Amino acid sequence: MELSGIISYPITPFSADERSINFDVLGETLELLLQNGSDAIAPLGSTGESAYLSLEEWRQVADFTVKTVAGRVPVIVGISELTTLQAISKARYAQSIGADAVMIIPVSYWKLTEQEIFNYYREISEAISLPIMIYNNPATSGIDMSPELLVQMFNEIDNVTMVKESSGDIQRMHKLYALSSGKLPFFNGSNPLALEALCAGASGWCTSAPNLIGQQPKALYQSVVAGKLDEAREIFYQQLPMLNFIVSGGIPKAIKAGLVLKGISAGLPRRPLRGATIAEITLLQSLMDSHTEVVK
Amino acid sequence: MELSGIISYPITPFSADERSINFDVLGETLELLLQNGSDAIAPLGSTGESAYLSLEEWRQVADFTVKTVAGRVPVIVGISELTTLQAISKARYAQSIGADAVMIIPVSYWKLTEQEIFNYYREISEAISLPIMIYNNPATSGIDMSPELLVQMFNEIDNVTMVKESSGDIQRMHKLYALSSGKLPFFNGSNPLALEALCAGASGWCTSAPNLIGQQPKALYQSVVAGKLDEAREIFYQQLPMLNFIVSGGIPKAIKAGLVLKGISAGLPRRPLRGATIAEITLLQSLMDSHTEVVK
Amino acid sequence: MELSGIISYPITPFSADERSINFDVLGETLELLLQNGSDAIAPLGSTGESAYLSLEEWRQVADFTVKTVAGRVPVIVGISELTTLQAISKARYAQSIGADAVMIIPVSYWKLTEQEIFNYYREISEAISLPIMIYNNPATSGIDMSPELLVQMFNEIDNVTMVKESSGDIQRMHKLYALSSGKLPFFNGSNPLALEALCAGASGWCTSAPNLIGQQPKALYQSVVAGKLDEAREIFYQQLPMLNFIVSGGIPKAIKAGLVLKGISAGLPRRPLRGATIAEITLLQSLMDSHTEVVK
Amino acid sequence: MELSGIISYPITPFSADERSINFDVLGETLELLLQNGSDAIAPLGSTGESAYLSLEEWRQVADFTVKTVAGRVPVIVGISELTTLQAISKARYAQSIGADAVMIIPVSYWKLTEQEIFNYYREISEAISLPIMIYNNPATSGIDMSPELLVQMFNEIDNVTMVKESSGDIQRMHKLYALSSGKLPFFNGSNPLALEALCAGASGWCTSAPNLIGQQPKALYQSVVAGKLDEAREIFYQQLPMLNFIVSGGIPKAIKAGLVLKGISAGLPRRPLRGATIAEITLLQSLMDSHTEVVK
Repeated sequence: MELSGIISYPITPFSADERSINFDVLGETLELLLQNGSDAIAPLGSTGESAYLSLEEWRQVADFTVKTVAGRVPVIVGISELTTLQAISKARYAQSIGADAVMIIPVSYWKLTEQEIFNYYREISEAISLPIMIYNNPATSGIDMSPELLVQMFNEIDNVTMVKESSGDIQRMHKLYALSSGKLPFFNGSNPLALEALCAGASGWCTSAPNLIGQQPKALYQSVVAGKLDEAREIFYQQLPMLNFIVSGGIPKAIKAGLVLKGISAGLPRRPLRGATIAEITLLQSLMDSHTEVVK
Repeated sequence: MELSGIISYPITPFSADERSINFDVLGETLELLLQNGSDAIAPLGSTGESAYLSLEEWRQVADFTVKTVAGRVPVIVGISELTTLQAISKARYAQSIGADAVMIIPVSYWKLTEQEIFNYYREISEAISLPIMIYNNPATSGIDMSPELLVQMFNEIDNVTMVKESSGDIQRMHKLYALSSGKLPFFNGSNPLALEALCAGASGWCTSAPNLIGQQPKALYQSVVAGKLDEAREIFYQQLPMLNFIVSGGIPKAIKAGLVLKGISAGLPRRPLRGATIAEITLLQSLMDSHTEVVK
Repeated sequence: MELSGIISYPITPFSADERSINFDVLGETLELLLQNGSDAIAPLGSTGESAYLSLEEWRQVADFTVKTVAGRVPVIVGISELTTLQAISKARYAQSIGADAVMIIPVSYWKLTEQEIFNYYREISEAISLPIMIYNNPATSGIDMSPELLVQMFNEIDNVTMVKESSGDIQRMHKLYALSSGKLPFFNGSNPLALEALCAGASGWCTSAPNLIGQQPKALYQSVVAGKLDEAREIFYQQLPMLNFIVSGGIPKAIKAGLVLKGISAGLPRRPLRGATIAEITLLQSLMDSHTEVVK
Repeated sequence: MELSGIISYPITPFSADERSINFDVLGETLELLLQNGSDAIAPLGSTGESAYLSLEEWRQVADFTVKTVAGRVPVIVGISELTTLQAISKARYAQSIGADAVMIIPVSYWKLTEQEIFNYYREISEAISLPIMIYNNPATSGIDMSPELLVQMFNEIDNVTMVKESSGDIQRMHKLYALSSGKLPFFNGSNPLALEALCAGASGWCTSAPNLIGQQPKALYQSVVAGKLDEAREIFYQQLPMLNFIVSGGIPKAIKAGLVLKGISAGLPRRPLRGATIAEITLLQSLMDSHTEVVK
């Protein structure tokens, strides 16, 4: 599997009492992402509140997504688990239901050594045959994997075939490129870094933005691939205020609020996470309005 | 309930395949802690790998501890949950089995606002009638609660009656003292800060050290309470190398390794956490030897 | 004055006993930089060890540089002073000898408030009629100016007409662009960020690299301006190891060592700064060799 | 020379136009500090705006202070210089006028390696015969010396006999104590850490607080030495709001404003540093009033 382009992240919509998943809305957002130029779909990521779900819920979302996408693009299932055994259990499940790849982030309570992180991925890899995307996001997971460690795992662990870098540090991408002689495919997971990451050679952009601003992320990707730098810069600065907004207060809150403004009953994130405030919704509406104008 | 002194933290020992709890060993360590001058016992804290347990395991450990301690000292049950509903469910369970208090830390994936943290504690408080110890440990939980927020919750949320501060920043304790006019009881959770925290007015010390160095933590506490500063300083510097060792590589690893050296089959932490290396075990043995000499 | 492109930074070479300036060598390096496509020359910057010079030495270097460049390109004289009065004195001197602009960084001992920084620049501006480039480099100066403050000073202080951003944070450049609607010309001062800063809209690149790798920085700039992204990326990754080397151990040390390898008697930085080690010189030689090959 | 107790820091008062030193006021504040129990006087420190003075001014202040103190207590002259040669020049001058010791902080523009820092102190030591107090204050100087390096310099450089630690990190003091087996005398330079540093074994407290709150710092020191912990804690919490105020906005600003409130014409810090705002002066007045009451 050679991935590139826009990997889109759906939310996980809940019922009003938070106790179950709203699959109708999940289906609606999956279709929305497919229409907006997604080259792959990644359920159960940070956007999908993966860490906040019960095991049973996690399985339901994985099942539903694989069935709904139905091979139209690859499905990359997100796994964020404290223990190796739980991560293996989920990875095997993802494989059993036909996922195309897994994206794995080793969340921490006690800090992990590099050897512990290496073993975590190695043991998961040995338990499955799917490609693994290593997901580095120190701000949410509490674990920061160095480019050196990432390249080592790419070289030494069979199923590790790509990296998603969400630290927002462009120098990490330079290092991934240099240390692997350009062979390790890396994806950008920091929305406000999209232009520069693609300029620096990222294979694609992992983003929830297509939920709210349609095909614009794809347009940015295509401009860079076509070498049209002036156009890419213009497209990027147009969407940057929205990208900053999405990131600033936590992605699930922003995306759910924006979907509601679009008429999709996305509901709220799970408590203690709260929904967007009136001020945030007002700002979001104006950002969405300005994007509609751009597209017209 | 007026707590003070040494609040001791037991490990959660696992079977060799990591799949179940070793209750015989748990019982052994609880007796050890009671013999070593513990003024309270706090199962399912950071030392107890609370975040790594299934719900069922968490309940079993809570049950077993309350029954084993059997009122000899108060039992404070630890809760570390991402969602409000799960935290409430555990807090109610702790109350139902006769725990004396709950110690709660709001672990994060998406960063929480102060309002979200406040609501988290308020909603838990409304669901139970037990005293709540707020536990601040940014290094493990990814959430850092300011002294201002902690004092506000103490003032405005009924069951919040004490704070455990593990940030290791003595200025926070000064602020807790000043902002509450000395009324908020705060406990030190940073082992290498024990002397200074007690000098600054902490009500006690939350520590796993009595697992390995017996009554020495209690002796430090008693020296400070008696105003014997020179003695306290001497006792503190004697145990400081061990306290630094315990903290440096993750508490469960260190305590389990030390218990094994004492002949107690404490086993290993749960993967991806690993056991102590040979070099660590050698150092630990020499630290334990020097403590035995001190006591003789 | 509309600046763009490569702004080159000469070293300040000292005599062997550190007590005087070696003007012969200074002249040699100025010619070298002019041959390598410099669009402007900036003496007395971080590369030029400005902060380590006596007032008299600083004046001598300014004089000599203005006279030697002799209008072939603009000369931007660097000023890094703790007190407002000293900064004004130097700025007036620069104007009196015919400098084209001044680049000013407000070094700190006691942290400055935003108001203090604003006043510092305002008072200097009122004392001269030259354009001022504000230089933000928190790593060396201990002062970090926010994009908001930088744009405010651009808008409200007459002679402030451009910014050099050396924090290495691409998001700052996005903010400078957005907050000024693209009107504030900003230059990149972080060597390993050169590709992305230019892609994001920087007017140019402030760099000492032309001392060691000739026309390659200019070639990168020209590729981006021409919209040739693939070529720019290739050129950038070729010079990135050298850019990282230059930055990693302190620019004056690296540039002086590299000039010596090229046969120019650049000497050593001023103590306590030390010259490059044997290991560093060996690495530097191999980096320079690989660049020579690229150019052939 | 065996120092202990309270080392007091005078300001450097300027004339209204900032261009000269006001020696009358300097003399007044020196007498004030001597009356308030100072065990030593340290002119030209951070409080004394040492880094903001011309060489000539620095010499005048050193001269005047040595002559005014006239052997009543030791005088420790502060040196903060970027270059080794300038630092040596000042150290020799201090020795020539009869200073008892020098306190030296190696301010940075380019970061220094440990070897560079070591050499800096070694070369200064070889040029003089006075005791050297190494001053670690990363917040102002941009250089952070580890406890390991500090102890190494104490062991290996002849005239290095003591350390002033202003990082505010109590664990550093533990390390200085442990690494030197209690032999390296360390002084606390972080005002809000005074109680705990003394409890942990500091030889004394370097502070500008006696300028504003008279003998209270000395009273805290004496309580700890006498082993009266409850009394020490009470005295400390009484002065803590003032200590926090002094530190929060820059010491020279706070001390000069407070002296003015006491009727001493201390003037303003040197620009770009500004004087206290009306709000700050109002708060400071109320803090000083509450201290007057305490003393009555």
